[in-house]
Amino acid sequence: MSEHYCIAGDIGGTNIRVSLVDAEYQIVSKLKEPTGTEPLSVLFRLIDSISLNVPGGRQACGIGLAVAGIVDTAAGVVLRSPNIPVLSGVHLQGAIAKRYGTCTLIENDANAAAFGEKIAGAGRDFGSFVLLTLGTGIGGGIVLNNRLLHVAAEIGHTTVNAAGPQCGCGSLGCLESYSSATAIIGGAISAMEKGTASILKESYNGNFYKLTAEDIYKAALEGDPLARLVLREAGKALGIGIANMINLMSPEAVILTGGLVGAWKIYIEAAIAEASKRSFAELFSKVRIVPSSLGDDAGSIGMAALTFEKGEGCRHNG
Amino acid sequence: MSEHYCIAGDIGGTNIRVSLVDAEYQIVSKLKEPTGTEPLSVLFRLIDSISLNVPGGRQACGIGLAVAGIVDTAAGVVLRSPNIPVLSGVHLQGAIAKRYGTCTLIENDANAAAFGEKIAGAGRDFGSFVLLTLGTGIGGGIVLNNRLLHVAAEIGHTTVNAAGPQCGCGSLGCLESYSSATAIIGGAISAMEKGTASILKESYNGNFYKLTAEDIYKAALEGDPLARLVLREAGKALGIGIANMINLMSPEAVILTGGLVGAWKIYIEAAIAEASKRSFAELFSKVRIVPSSLGDDAGSIGMAALTFEKGEGCRHNG
Repeated sequence: MSEHYCIAGDIGGTNIRVSLVDAEYQIVSKLKEPTGTEPLSVLFRLIDSISLNVPGGRQACGIGLAVAGIVDTAAGVVLRSPNIPVLSGVHLQGAIAKRYGTCTLIENDANAAAFGEKIAGAGRDFGSFVLLTLGTGIGGGIVLNNRLLHVAAEIGHTTVNAAGPQCGCGSLGCLESYSSATAIIGGAISAMEKGTASILKESYNGNFYKLTAEDIYKAALEGDPLARLVLREAGKALGIGIANMINLMSPEAVILTGGLVGAWKIYIEAAIAEASKRSFAELFSKVRIVPSSLGDDAGSIGMAALTFEKGEGCRHNG
Repeated sequence: MSEHYCIAGDIGGTNIRVSLVDAEYQIVSKLKEPTGTEPLSVLFRLIDSISLNVPGGRQACGIGLAVAGIVDTAAGVVLRSPNIPVLSGVHLQGAIAKRYGTCTLIENDANAAAFGEKIAGAGRDFGSFVLLTLGTGIGGGIVLNNRLLHVAAEIGHTTVNAAGPQCGCGSLGCLESYSSATAIIGGAISAMEKGTASILKESYNGNFYKLTAEDIYKAALEGDPLARLVLREAGKALGIGIANMINLMSPEAVILTGGLVGAWKIYIEAAIAEASKRSFAELFSKVRIVPSSLGDDAGSIGMAALTFEKGEGCRHNG
């Protein structure tokens, strides 16, 4: 049993999670609240609460925060957070350090998840891998020689189609515009609006604007042609993104996480087939493509590991 | 003045270069021969010759070879070399070590060039950068936190257009198919075959199949609309590749090398304009896009540095 603890947070567009993690990377307790419009107040409240849970009334030896957005880890600044705009430009590390007077670290959420999988999840047996988070958007993280690369790794915002649709980021033809849950739902809705037949039309009493990616996957498993087509096309584009990462990083594995991993049998299988066609055979043959194993806790565990690593000194004054 | 030397080679599709490099990364002497159909014989001959040049009759303390192809550095194997097919699958490190009994290292040529620029060239002042080699093909190398990433970095073979033309690598719409010298020349020839007017038609007594990228750049500078269009389009696609690397690696710089850097004023400027539109503004604003400074010697200098680094022991028995 460990005597040292750190606080790890995961600040997403929908929820903020704060966990107390011990030095064996076990989550001792966790709290969650909607992000809302004042994420800093929520964050402070959750950290205050969870601090009371440190066993023996000791102090946590550090605070690590994963943030949905582009983070300058060295400077401690959130450069841009499309889903939590009020955090854009905020010196989050400074704000936390000032309030709590402890060693503090911030990272991009997908990077933190990648390091979490490395420390305690599906990445444990791989020295080098690329992690993709497949949800509302698409994020990425890269582990090389057992270390997290502190780079943007914005795989969702790499172009896979020069003249593709406009993305929220300002570019055209981003991977995210083809392969995210948002893209899959949008593709199905748009086809139905144009009159394509589908059992999805009966969902939600005909209000198919409420569809989720899970609904589409279920319909696909039931054989619905539109649902199958939409998922296959999204998967093919994902395969391009995966192939690009294989040809760039020659990883031992590609680890997939996020809600869409549930759609393995059509979406991910289409991605793997496409990636096998587009990446160098010599590299593809060595890559394992596998689902993550930590789920929503990956980011917190990764942040805990990074925080313990950064604050070697902290570890002994808990 | 250094008392230690290593032998650094650069095995390209056209020529093999072998240099003797001292511990201050100065090239003491160099030899060059066409690669031909028996590159190993040529390589051995050049290494034998240059070994005689080590001052004081001493032995070079290591041999480092940059290879045009996908290299498994850890295993010492050339996985695939499209331009020197006889090297594909060859355990080159083993062959050299066996013959010369010295510490040996192999790397991809663009990776070696990137590390050369880091050690003694345009990358000296940057902790992290992406290097692109712009010639017949497009290669890449990545330096992060002052270290070379030993990854494939095959930027030329990342898809920028899902349904683009078939590439020699087997994929579709690779960056190389749009932005290499081969692509530029092919684009100009194909337009002229279809009847597009251009002063290039008069080149080589009408045999415009002999055109070089340099000819096309000259015509563009003279205002030839076809030449300008072809270079601008190739540059725009290059800009997509650069933006993708910025969004992935958030580098401090992008360093451009190879023959096409000569076409800065149309081709590279179009690339920079496109990259600025497609990459995150917060990342693009911090990136310097600059030409390399070592030219053809970058690979040899990089290999020398990697070889000295690997063979710390060797350094003292020269």
